[in-house]
Amino acid sequence: MSFGTLRNYVGGKWVSSKSTQFLDVRNPATDEVLAQVPLSTKQEVNEAVSEAKKAFTEWREVPPVVRARYFFNLRNLLEEHFEDISRLLVQENGKTLAEARGSMRRAVEMVEVSAGIPSLMMGHNLEDIAPGIDCVAVRQPLGVFACITPFNFPAMVPLWFLPFAVACGNTFVVKPSEQTPLCQKRIFELMHDVGFPPGVVNMVNGAKDAVNALLENKDVIGVSFVGSSPVARYVYETAGKRGKRVQALGGAKNFLVVMPDADLDSTVAALIDSCFGCAGERCLAGSVLVAVGDVYDKLKAKFLEAAKKVVVGYGLDEGTTMGPVISRKHKEKVLGYIASGVRDGAGLLLDGRNVKVNGYPNGYFVGPTVFENVEPSMPIAKEEIFGPVVSLMRVASLEEALELISQNEFGNATSIFTQSGGAAREFAYRVGISMIGINIGIAAPMAFFTFGGAKGSFFGDLKAHGRDSVEFFTDKRVIISRWF
Amino acid sequence: MSFGTLRNYVGGKWVSSKSTQFLDVRNPATDEVLAQVPLSTKQEVNEAVSEAKKAFTEWREVPPVVRARYFFNLRNLLEEHFEDISRLLVQENGKTLAEARGSMRRAVEMVEVSAGIPSLMMGHNLEDIAPGIDCVAVRQPLGVFACITPFNFPAMVPLWFLPFAVACGNTFVVKPSEQTPLCQKRIFELMHDVGFPPGVVNMVNGAKDAVNALLENKDVIGVSFVGSSPVARYVYETAGKRGKRVQALGGAKNFLVVMPDADLDSTVAALIDSCFGCAGERCLAGSVLVAVGDVYDKLKAKFLEAAKKVVVGYGLDEGTTMGPVISRKHKEKVLGYIASGVRDGAGLLLDGRNVKVNGYPNGYFVGPTVFENVEPSMPIAKEEIFGPVVSLMRVASLEEALELISQNEFGNATSIFTQSGGAAREFAYRVGISMIGINIGIAAPMAFFTFGGAKGSFFGDLKAHGRDSVEFFTDKRVIISRWF
Amino acid sequence: MSFGTLRNYVGGKWVSSKSTQFLDVRNPATDEVLAQVPLSTKQEVNEAVSEAKKAFTEWREVPPVVRARYFFNLRNLLEEHFEDISRLLVQENGKTLAEARGSMRRAVEMVEVSAGIPSLMMGHNLEDIAPGIDCVAVRQPLGVFACITPFNFPAMVPLWFLPFAVACGNTFVVKPSEQTPLCQKRIFELMHDVGFPPGVVNMVNGAKDAVNALLENKDVIGVSFVGSSPVARYVYETAGKRGKRVQALGGAKNFLVVMPDADLDSTVAALIDSCFGCAGERCLAGSVLVAVGDVYDKLKAKFLEAAKKVVVGYGLDEGTTMGPVISRKHKEKVLGYIASGVRDGAGLLLDGRNVKVNGYPNGYFVGPTVFENVEPSMPIAKEEIFGPVVSLMRVASLEEALELISQNEFGNATSIFTQSGGAAREFAYRVGISMIGINIGIAAPMAFFTFGGAKGSFFGDLKAHGRDSVEFFTDKRVIISRWF
Amino acid sequence: MSFGTLRNYVGGKWVSSKSTQFLDVRNPATDEVLAQVPLSTKQEVNEAVSEAKKAFTEWREVPPVVRARYFFNLRNLLEEHFEDISRLLVQENGKTLAEARGSMRRAVEMVEVSAGIPSLMMGHNLEDIAPGIDCVAVRQPLGVFACITPFNFPAMVPLWFLPFAVACGNTFVVKPSEQTPLCQKRIFELMHDVGFPPGVVNMVNGAKDAVNALLENKDVIGVSFVGSSPVARYVYETAGKRGKRVQALGGAKNFLVVMPDADLDSTVAALIDSCFGCAGERCLAGSVLVAVGDVYDKLKAKFLEAAKKVVVGYGLDEGTTMGPVISRKHKEKVLGYIASGVRDGAGLLLDGRNVKVNGYPNGYFVGPTVFENVEPSMPIAKEEIFGPVVSLMRVASLEEALELISQNEFGNATSIFTQSGGAAREFAYRVGISMIGINIGIAAPMAFFTFGGAKGSFFGDLKAHGRDSVEFFTDKRVIISRWF
Repeated sequence: MSFGTLRNYVGGKWVSSKSTQFLDVRNPATDEVLAQVPLSTKQEVNEAVSEAKKAFTEWREVPPVVRARYFFNLRNLLEEHFEDISRLLVQENGKTLAEARGSMRRAVEMVEVSAGIPSLMMGHNLEDIAPGIDCVAVRQPLGVFACITPFNFPAMVPLWFLPFAVACGNTFVVKPSEQTPLCQKRIFELMHDVGFPPGVVNMVNGAKDAVNALLENKDVIGVSFVGSSPVARYVYETAGKRGKRVQALGGAKNFLVVMPDADLDSTVAALIDSCFGCAGERCLAGSVLVAVGDVYDKLKAKFLEAAKKVVVGYGLDEGTTMGPVISRKHKEKVLGYIASGVRDGAGLLLDGRNVKVNGYPNGYFVGPTVFENVEPSMPIAKEEIFGPVVSLMRVASLEEALELISQNEFGNATSIFTQSGGAAREFAYRVGISMIGINIGIAAPMAFFTFGGAKGSFFGDLKAHGRDSVEFFTDKRVIISRWF
Repeated sequence: MSFGTLRNYVGGKWVSSKSTQFLDVRNPATDEVLAQVPLSTKQEVNEAVSEAKKAFTEWREVPPVVRARYFFNLRNLLEEHFEDISRLLVQENGKTLAEARGSMRRAVEMVEVSAGIPSLMMGHNLEDIAPGIDCVAVRQPLGVFACITPFNFPAMVPLWFLPFAVACGNTFVVKPSEQTPLCQKRIFELMHDVGFPPGVVNMVNGAKDAVNALLENKDVIGVSFVGSSPVARYVYETAGKRGKRVQALGGAKNFLVVMPDADLDSTVAALIDSCFGCAGERCLAGSVLVAVGDVYDKLKAKFLEAAKKVVVGYGLDEGTTMGPVISRKHKEKVLGYIASGVRDGAGLLLDGRNVKVNGYPNGYFVGPTVFENVEPSMPIAKEEIFGPVVSLMRVASLEEALELISQNEFGNATSIFTQSGGAAREFAYRVGISMIGINIGIAAPMAFFTFGGAKGSFFGDLKAHGRDSVEFFTDKRVIISRWF
Repeated sequence: MSFGTLRNYVGGKWVSSKSTQFLDVRNPATDEVLAQVPLSTKQEVNEAVSEAKKAFTEWREVPPVVRARYFFNLRNLLEEHFEDISRLLVQENGKTLAEARGSMRRAVEMVEVSAGIPSLMMGHNLEDIAPGIDCVAVRQPLGVFACITPFNFPAMVPLWFLPFAVACGNTFVVKPSEQTPLCQKRIFELMHDVGFPPGVVNMVNGAKDAVNALLENKDVIGVSFVGSSPVARYVYETAGKRGKRVQALGGAKNFLVVMPDADLDSTVAALIDSCFGCAGERCLAGSVLVAVGDVYDKLKAKFLEAAKKVVVGYGLDEGTTMGPVISRKHKEKVLGYIASGVRDGAGLLLDGRNVKVNGYPNGYFVGPTVFENVEPSMPIAKEEIFGPVVSLMRVASLEEALELISQNEFGNATSIFTQSGGAAREFAYRVGISMIGINIGIAAPMAFFTFGGAKGSFFGDLKAHGRDSVEFFTDKRVIISRWF
Repeated sequence: MSFGTLRNYVGGKWVSSKSTQFLDVRNPATDEVLAQVPLSTKQEVNEAVSEAKKAFTEWREVPPVVRARYFFNLRNLLEEHFEDISRLLVQENGKTLAEARGSMRRAVEMVEVSAGIPSLMMGHNLEDIAPGIDCVAVRQPLGVFACITPFNFPAMVPLWFLPFAVACGNTFVVKPSEQTPLCQKRIFELMHDVGFPPGVVNMVNGAKDAVNALLENKDVIGVSFVGSSPVARYVYETAGKRGKRVQALGGAKNFLVVMPDADLDSTVAALIDSCFGCAGERCLAGSVLVAVGDVYDKLKAKFLEAAKKVVVGYGLDEGTTMGPVISRKHKEKVLGYIASGVRDGAGLLLDGRNVKVNGYPNGYFVGPTVFENVEPSMPIAKEEIFGPVVSLMRVASLEEALELISQNEFGNATSIFTQSGGAAREFAYRVGISMIGINIGIAAPMAFFTFGGAKGSFFGDLKAHGRDSVEFFTDKRVIISRWF
């Protein structure tokens, strides 16, 4: 299957890029080329922004209750095409089919929640702030917003932003990952069928130049970014330099703490899913398992036993429980981390470097990899690997676990496994991280809660989806009135 | 009266700066030196941040309902010292006493609203986000915040931030204006008497170096800035570069639109207050009066008549209705704008350049100044003057007025004067500015609403005081739990 | 077309009533019998409640986000059957097709808003209400709720309650009007197709005995009622006697105030729709037109002219702009009011008593009827007529209009027609009525706002749909925890 | 100390009742007569309501931010008189001084939270509910509200209602308990000093006739009641009959569940406080201790040991940890329950009937009383005793405990003692009661959360204090506007 050369969606039409630069989109399990993605030029980005700007005034005047209906309809089309987009997601990204479906479900939920915009975007008001003077704070949309999204959840992440922004009355430009642009192609085809007025939703394929064009365009009011922390910092600073609203979600190094009283069987199942699900390419993936007290040996044994049962393969094949990483280049990076761990003296309990998958000799597979005797100062213990590589550490107490976590620069997600209400409360109260799981491997806030991290994992204040979205995508205009 | 050399308030103590640089604080009506303010060093700022950081953990654990009580008590002390701080404000800033009292009232209201923190900082939650899994989003404070504030409301503006931040459980550093540091000195004396634990509230006097030290210190989680737009942009970018939360309120050029059906007597009273109150040194001050249709001549006559009645003088003297501008240097800047207006061919209807005030030969006085025949391209029509200089413009329709406003780079506040519900709605719906008055000269949101502008007048998303404050000063930590 | 004998929907099945009492459902335009509706017995009601109670525990454990999906699906089916239900609504109720579609649109919106339940039913929480003690207020559903609904909006009114209650996790029993049970029959068929678990949604046809059975059944936690004020009072008291939650929406007498500055053409169009739309059988219908000052004569002339153009007929026939009233008996009541007006000395400007509609000799038609010289003490000026009968009154000032309105026992809706922002504010501030229109004939809050009146038009505190629904259908359970 | 004959506070003045009926107010520890309370007549109640009604229009027009200041000031006076009111509370009610101070602290918190009314009473709004049509839901006060309060928290309970109602702009009438009217006398003296405009706050002493007068007066918009369940039911029904808003908080029978993993020392301390604090005269008092599994024997031993250490005496005497019950009559009732327990065959482990307190031979003392072998069907196990009488029960599992609790007609509060997060969640999720403690003996929501029970313990929907208060005391008036 090949999709040929991808086009951009601008002003309600599919348009071919005039770029002279293209990248191959490859199936990471087969190395097969699925499509060519254009690296659109600054001018092409500006044209999309311009179309979005033109569409704004009319779209903003469409009543919220009517705007919501576009999302009711989009929701229906996404349900109808749920399975084919899920399969496409496997092909461009390398997830298993179950994982792809899971992320599509989350994507649909974003659309569902944004369909509640008439309730969500209400402002507030008070009579008589002074005698005879009233004040009404109205939420008004602001204009053109854009998002720049990563390869790991190509169907879902753009929908963390677009539905909320557009339901609020803004117009939008998506710059999908150039590594995984196909799901958005499909989703924009559905949005086209939904009949959004031209210019309300736009997509421009591209890479660094397209990003910079969005960051520099004065008509882009705000930017939502999801990716690695260095790029998140760059986006945050650059958008800031231009005076834009910006929310930049970066990388992660997530610690999963296992207390001695944890139910080990359930815990290990959750840990395996957290660490090896999506081949570790999740900003919520567990990366360091912190065993508290004497649970270490039992945990290690059970975890290793379960890790060995992970079935690496092509996501569309039945029985596969872990797919490849996204690219050859990324595989090299992950293998580099494993090598560094070995070099630094960590104990390699399970080595995923030489995994072979029958029938897919060219896939970018890395098997489950587990280290022990890891020091906090080692790169494998403190940097984001974004692959199926786990470090086991042991500490004497919850106190020590909290200290260990506090030293890491990231602060995206973390979890504790325990039966103790007290330990759970202590952990959530003190850990200083924004997405917290209690006996949950992947602490992902749903569409109606806010998604985003702390410390080096998030730059901004208002986060993704949930209530923060409405805050980010609107301005509370305060109208103070008296009559004489 | 002289206050000698001012000290910083750090870690619960008044400490002398080790700086070798000092500025004179002068009474703008008399040119008298009131005090010497130290330009604290980077190290002194860092010490204050360090004290604030140390105080955070314990302060955060004080229940919100108890933290609120510090503000109930501060409110009482502010009421008790309302008059003496108001008089001090006149002396360091040049306001009239009535204006000083007005801004103190607003300051007290900030403290009053922040005393409602147990209700305001609640998070939200939902049972069964999945079977047996619950989600609680808890608002947690983040650590050390800081504000950098301007000369024009020296008592009030720091209290736009500190009470909310501290009531939320953060600790705080204020960098007051080096031109007007005295009111904060008094207010921090009162905070000392309230008995905040050492390190919870801190103040460091200083100028650019102190600002940069705050922007660079990695332990400062977020910065609130109020000042001119160029500095606001600088702060926004620089704090962004360091990954901080930031809200930067900049300058303004506020258009006041008068419709033909406006009640002219009430309107002119409001316009005079808006344009000449606080000598025009307000980010909400009216600067361009836009007369729609045939109201121009009547408006001009009545406005001029009223402007001529403005009594320029020392704020502490009875009968004064307008004081001096803040400094000799700023007076020169304002006079420069008047000269540019003349040069550019605008019609100078009332010239405030040679105002004399008996008994205050050295005061920085500028009298009410009114231009007509002003073109949108003239600096007096588009730049922030921050003095008692007004441009009269005429347009044919509300449509034209909206167009005129939309071309200006700023977007802080604007007002319409009309009896028509329809015109008011149209204006508020389309003007694209964040603080909107209907028959209100100064469209100032009260402490329980959000304060901040749009376009080139504000950089960030969450604004000052009101609900946004709680969002800005807390992180919604999402706790997802199941038990097995 | 005949639907034969209607059945109840209980425990997921259509069941025939064992009642021995039946009423004919008639098409009010043709007098044709459409169906027989059983007057179900107390025992049948109790069985429905029992099924609902059995279904509660499991339904409540379905995650809100999943419960919402039943409403996404119901919304789709309602859209699919929008036209046929609208036509059925015309047949059983007598509306015009445009009116029927309008009320169906409102009905669909209820379902749309309730699909946002994950956002809407969140509780709130605060850490450290005392040191180490946290408090979470969780919204939990309560069990079985029921609604008792009127003839005038047979498709819409049950959906003011059921979707919100059921989305919150409760189970439900609808007792539709015995005069117009057909739309609910169809809607329950669609709910059956949606696949709600058996017992979650139930419908029992019947009249007074069924009402009493619901009011007396101890397993019914709360009752929502819409109907006339005397019955609303009875329901409020009787449910109160049983300790139930209750919200009872009663009758109305709505005053529409026309100021001298009103745009008369637009105003009259709105008045005609308000007074004669749905043949006046709306709790929001205008009933008394209050002309302020010298607008009276012009208003009277234009209103009469427009009233004469109303085309009375069968709602399914093209060109009809007003249909019949609901029943022969109700027609007699309306005619009785007209006679009383004549008897009391009011001036009958337009007499709708002898209206003839070609081809529908047996329809319950009443033509537009307009009185003038009406005294506030006359029954036509103060009682609810629920027919196309309007009284014109004149007052000298807005003050007098407010006084006139304040004397009426009802307080459902009211409107002012004016161009003045000041008059509108004054009116809304002082009128003391809960649904207020500014240049709006039918001041109907949409699904995301709260619906219900004041004074003698509403009994309870929490109203219908909007945020109040979630409050009414859930209990905020406060969980206070510490761990040691 | 004698207060003589108490007066009412009506229309801003202290007025002597014209009643011919008086009751003695007695110190329950000494039997000394403290005052005579008049049983005011219906006419006196009506006069108070009339004064309140007259005061409403002007009070409602006072801006919320200014109304709030009355409560800032009241808060200061309450702090100033904290100790003397606490001591008075001991004298009229019999609490210990520590208990009195605790309830005064809660009372002050109500005032503190109500001072946040500008934030709390905001309405909500949305632009473009249809093209060009906006909707604003404004919270408006309604008129005169009243509360009828019990003897057990004479200072606090009226302040559950009055501050919120009055801060919202309503006017108010308090009918305090005729058994304990003295604290309200003092608090109304302070409110007088605060300077509320005449008629805004009123107090009428009295008993059943006064209650009925309030329930029947058509100008009383709503009634808040706290007392026993039979009277709560009566008030709910009777106010309902008159179409009023009503919230009626009734009695309780609170089960405290102790799991085998509970920390027994901390648990027993909490249980003792819960069961014997305020001599058991709290609607949140623990009454049945449910030991799960094998914890029974240890719990029994430790609880008995601690119960024996309770020091019964006069609340003003140092060392007293439990005071008398409210009256001789109530003591007889409590003793009757103990006798019934003995008669029914329960095992009397600790008998408080013959407690003697040195120096207070006439006090209404009952000592801590503990039963075991209690059957659910015995009155001591299912009825509200409102005295220091505890039943120990044992069950095999949490499941059984939940079943036991579900059978009781009341549903005010309940607690679980455990270290298990899972057990706590299961309990809170399933227990179906509105105030839930996790390792908390008295699950009292603070002023910023909502207070009220479920099942036979509460009648209504909106509860006391917290957010519900604002809902109960305001009407969300929906203003729908368009302009032409």
